Amino acid sequence: MMAFRKFLPLFDRVLVERLTAETVTKGGIMLPEKSQGKVLQATVVAVGPGSVNQKGHVQPVSVKVGEKVLLPEYGGTKVILEEKDYFLFRDGDILGKYVD
Amino acid sequence: MMAFRKFLPLFDRVLVERLTAETVTKGGIMLPEKSQGKVLQATVVAVGPGSVNQKGHVQPVSVKVGEKVLLPEYGGTKVILEEKDYFLFRDGDILGKYVD
Amino acid sequence: MMAFRKFLPLFDRVLVERLTAETVTKGGIMLPEKSQGKVLQATVVAVGPGSVNQKGHVQPVSVKVGEKVLLPEYGGTKVILEEKDYFLFRDGDILGKYVD
Amino acid sequence: MMAFRKFLPLFDRVLVERLTAETVTKGGIMLPEKSQGKVLQATVVAVGPGSVNQKGHVQPVSVKVGEKVLLPEYGGTKVILEEKDYFLFRDGDILGKYVD
Amino acid sequence: MMAFRKFLPLFDRVLVERLTAETVTKGGIMLPEKSQGKVLQATVVAVGPGSVNQKGHVQPVSVKVGEKVLLPEYGGTKVILEEKDYFLFRDGDILGKYVD
Amino acid sequence: MMAFRKFLPLFDRVLVERLTAETVTKGGIMLPEKSQGKVLQATVVAVGPGSVNQKGHVQPVSVKVGEKVLLPEYGGTKVILEEKDYFLFRDGDILGKYVD
Amino acid sequence: MMAFRKFLPLFDRVLVERLTAETVTKGGIMLPEKSQGKVLQATVVAVGPGSVNQKGHVQPVSVKVGEKVLLPEYGGTKVILEEKDYFLFRDGDILGKYVD
Repeated sequence: MMAFRKFLPLFDRVLVERLTAETVTKGGIMLPEKSQGKVLQATVVAVGPGSVNQKGHVQPVSVKVGEKVLLPEYGGTKVILEEKDYFLFRDGDILGKYVD
Repeated sequence: MMAFRKFLPLFDRVLVERLTAETVTKGGIMLPEKSQGKVLQATVVAVGPGSVNQKGHVQPVSVKVGEKVLLPEYGGTKVILEEKDYFLFRDGDILGKYVD
Repeated sequence: MMAFRKFLPLFDRVLVERLTAETVTKGGIMLPEKSQGKVLQATVVAVGPGSVNQKGHVQPVSVKVGEKVLLPEYGGTKVILEEKDYFLFRDGDILGKYVD
Repeated sequence: MMAFRKFLPLFDRVLVERLTAETVTKGGIMLPEKSQGKVLQATVVAVGPGSVNQKGHVQPVSVKVGEKVLLPEYGGTKVILEEKDYFLFRDGDILGKYVD
Repeated sequence: MMAFRKFLPLFDRVLVERLTAETVTKGGIMLPEKSQGKVLQATVVAVGPGSVNQKGHVQPVSVKVGEKVLLPEYGGTKVILEEKDYFLFRDGDILGKYVD
Repeated sequence: MMAFRKFLPLFDRVLVERLTAETVTKGGIMLPEKSQGKVLQATVVAVGPGSVNQKGHVQPVSVKVGEKVLLPEYGGTKVILEEKDYFLFRDGDILGKYVD
Repeated sequence: MMAFRKFLPLFDRVLVERLTAETVTKGGIMLPEKSQGKVLQATVVAVGPGSVNQKGHVQPVSVKVGEKVLLPEYGGTKVILEEKDYFLFRDGDILGKYVD
């Protein structure tokens, strides 16, 4: 968990960790790598303070650390922290979140 | 209905489910798949809280869950929730809604 | 007239019905289809509530249902309602209106 | 003159009628059509109410009906009213006006 | 001088008259036309009232009639008034002015 | 340290010094130059006063001298000060910072 | 020095004079012209009054006459005043300044 506390995204950037692709179907059949889709679900691990609007006020981001989000298929910046892959997305580019 | 409650679009995004294409004409003739047009009518299944304007105020979206809407021919992002296809559109890209 | 009451354009969109091309000249000569120009005159059949400006206020559209308008040569989105062709234009793209 | 009263441009659009090209020089020599320049002088025949700024206020156009204006070489939209050619320009695209 | 009083540029446009290229060097040697640079110095002959900002206030132009200005190498619109060449520039495109 | 005090970036620019690439792995194996990734970590050595927003207020930059930051893979301007390489980035382009 | 007082840049433009390239290295070796880098250091010789923001207020430029600045590698407009080369840059394009 240390990595998350050590890196602070700037402005409205959100650091996420993609869920690992499930390589076994519900029925227990192993999937070859090709048929596995790109994983678009991720967990928020760090958030920036928010963007600054034209009035100089900070607009907080709309997701919180620990929330499960749906990422767009393209975009985002890969960031390697302590030899692990993370991705930075702008708050406004995250499609939605999963709520209970 | 659970899927709709579990996924919350962010900002001014609207989650819709396209109506199924009618493959039988009014007169009862089955249509081959080619002659079926792209279905542009959809039902709103979830809406984001709205976009944030330059003053920092949230501008709610203009459609509600359950409303029937007309989608533009292009655009939108396919989202798979519980193995079912949905589409995300920006509120401002939805052309209109059907009212009674 | 039911179609017009059932479909509500969103934001500053205006639903229009193009006038039918006159295929007979003033002098009574039938025109072959090629020499008929694109019909740019239309009747407004439904209007959206207006666009939302940066202050969050709604700016009503500048035309009313029933008014005759002049459309730009390009642009607009074809919409089929009850098997009849209509077109959606942004309020700001309509060139002008005919007044008595 | 009826045409001018019957057509109302929307927003900051200005309807103009181009001056007819002079095909005879000051010295009385007839010019072949090729050597005649594009006529950029026009008379304002109808004006829109003005554009709406971000505060929702209408900004009136800067020319009046009857004024002689200088048009840019490119741009403008041809409009045919009662079988006569007119042109629509945005107020901001008109270069200047001739004053006495 | 009549031309200047008769033409009024609109918005933030500035009408200038380019200085004539000096075809004789300081030392008195005649320059062939090729080696003469494009003349970028001009005299302001008419100015528009200024542009309208988002608040609806007019922002006057920054040069006055009679001032000597430095033009950018490209841009500007040639305007022929009483068979003489003038150029229209946006106030913001004029590089600077010569002051005594 | 003198270089940092002598150069002042303007507006929201941030002067950084990239960390030197580690050419030896944790296990002590020397890496050939090709396999070394581009170093994206840097130390802030000077910051501008901030950008000026539409209200005329200065918006300070979000990083401080001495902070460790993560740079985007592309962009930035190389600046040579006293024969040493530095890079200028816009505050908004810096991805995040490392905090203890 | 007369040139500086006679030319006044408009808006947020800054007139600079590039430092002359040193063609002799510290060790006294003459450099052929090719190996000399483009000189990016310059002295401010005249500044405009500043740009006008959306509220109509003038935003003064961030450099003063006599200050040493670092120019971007590309951009700027060459201006010849009294047979000497100067360059005009927008205030916002100047990278930074050297302070004592």
